[in-house]
Amino acid sequence: MDIKQHLNDQRLLVETALNTFLPKEEGLLADHFAALRYSLVAGGKRIRPVLCMMTAEALGARMEACMAIPCALECIHTYSLIHDDLPAMDNDDLRRGKPTNHKVFGEAQAILAGDGLLTMAFALLSDDALPDRLSSADRLRIIHLIARAAGSHGMVGGQALDVASEGKTVPFETLAAIHASKTGALITASVQAGAILGGATTAQYEDLTAYGQHLGLAFQITDDLLNVEGSPAELGKAAGSDAARRKATYPGFFGVETTRRKAGEAIKAAVDRLAPFGTTATPLRELARYLLKRSK
Amino acid sequence: MDIKQHLNDQRLLVETALNTFLPKEEGLLADHFAALRYSLVAGGKRIRPVLCMMTAEALGARMEACMAIPCALECIHTYSLIHDDLPAMDNDDLRRGKPTNHKVFGEAQAILAGDGLLTMAFALLSDDALPDRLSSADRLRIIHLIARAAGSHGMVGGQALDVASEGKTVPFETLAAIHASKTGALITASVQAGAILGGATTAQYEDLTAYGQHLGLAFQITDDLLNVEGSPAELGKAAGSDAARRKATYPGFFGVETTRRKAGEAIKAAVDRLAPFGTTATPLRELARYLLKRSK
Repeated sequence: MDIKQHLNDQRLLVETALNTFLPKEEGLLADHFAALRYSLVAGGKRIRPVLCMMTAEALGARMEACMAIPCALECIHTYSLIHDDLPAMDNDDLRRGKPTNHKVFGEAQAILAGDGLLTMAFALLSDDALPDRLSSADRLRIIHLIARAAGSHGMVGGQALDVASEGKTVPFETLAAIHASKTGALITASVQAGAILGGATTAQYEDLTAYGQHLGLAFQITDDLLNVEGSPAELGKAAGSDAARRKATYPGFFGVETTRRKAGEAIKAAVDRLAPFGTTATPLRELARYLLKRSK
Repeated sequence: MDIKQHLNDQRLLVETALNTFLPKEEGLLADHFAALRYSLVAGGKRIRPVLCMMTAEALGARMEACMAIPCALECIHTYSLIHDDLPAMDNDDLRRGKPTNHKVFGEAQAILAGDGLLTMAFALLSDDALPDRLSSADRLRIIHLIARAAGSHGMVGGQALDVASEGKTVPFETLAAIHASKTGALITASVQAGAILGGATTAQYEDLTAYGQHLGLAFQITDDLLNVEGSPAELGKAAGSDAARRKATYPGFFGVETTRRKAGEAIKAAVDRLAPFGTTATPLRELARYLLKRSK
């Protein structure tokens, strides 16, 4: 299969759905909704929602009526980028080649755009009026696992640890914890949400969870590699920014070659857990391999 | 009944429950959890959780096993205070007489403490392992109404509008919209969550919702009055800060006397909607009257 084409098709589905869920930019809150939209439509690979969709589809589900859940994942990811870019955090002026949210709307409105997107995610996830035929119990399970993955025990905690570790010499265990929680948790949760959407058995859920965990690790490792070696065009921001900030990274611990090998091992471990699945899981396998290639 | 004593008893129940839900300050994330705890245990009247509890109790429910829901409301309120106090927003150094979160933990960690508390609220609300015998469908209804009330169509939107209106001459309609969304929405949602917990009929739900709306308005009006007239000890921060920031307020539009009358009318309208309820709603009535008294 042509994974690049498939990823592009899935990305467009996500972006169309995001547009239907975004409030119109009118009335007293037009500026606030413009700030939400600005970052939500700023592009990106939409990896989290696409993973959720591909996982559900690997189990035979059809996603057309279930788009609120992948869209909620993208809202959470986007809010985290807006807050990470703030002057008090990474102080980034560019994101995906465009001025960051606070550069356009000011710091206060950027904080609120992030808060709004995070909260909107949970409004989407809990909207029982949606035509997705998901049982209330399954919907609750999805909300709970996403909230845990996005919060203090996951993404928010990882970012707190990352900020606190900046400029310090930290042991590898701390870097591993930052990676697992800051990036890995929401990627794993995206796969798990798709597994519930697809009606996974317990064994399938475990395999898919492991796939998500290995993939999440590979994702962060290749991000570290790209940050060392990528061009600003690929990154949408300056290369070498991690080193400039003295952030702990995989290449910093192991060097580029060993890091690349570790990324390959994580991808292999991810793909291995898909062995019990048939051709419906081909997109998940190809996505993992594609991820590895982008860092070479 | 002695409403002050009753409010105090309820407040202590909330604070005990918050303590059980807060993660321990240990491991790599000890500092992050300390930042969450710092603001969550900083006091305050716990009006939102107490309203939720009193409403459920007015319908005959027992709250001992349902504390996750009031606690989630307090997490959301506390996160909003942390973010409102940030330098980019209201830039407050004091909150309830103590240094604000960012003054103690720094701006980045304060943003993340707020993000963590908001997300924790939804993890609490969706935790099906809790012994509250709430059906999954009712739990989803509560999550959805709280997410709507806390997000861009409620509290976050109200704050965005408030920040955007600062220093500008805005029509009364804008002030009314700010009040209704910034404060009123979550207060109303607290009552609505309690109504669902208590198994309200449709008619009861409508009466209680109206009670919450009137009370929310009264709450914001009396807050405006306190800001004009209160002592720093009552406020936990400097009096007159709204005027200094040229924020639109009720006293600014109507003067103190008319504003006080409007607060009284809102309280009366709130209490009137409790007519169908018996003595179990006495705490809700007394709370409304108590609220009015504190502004005199």
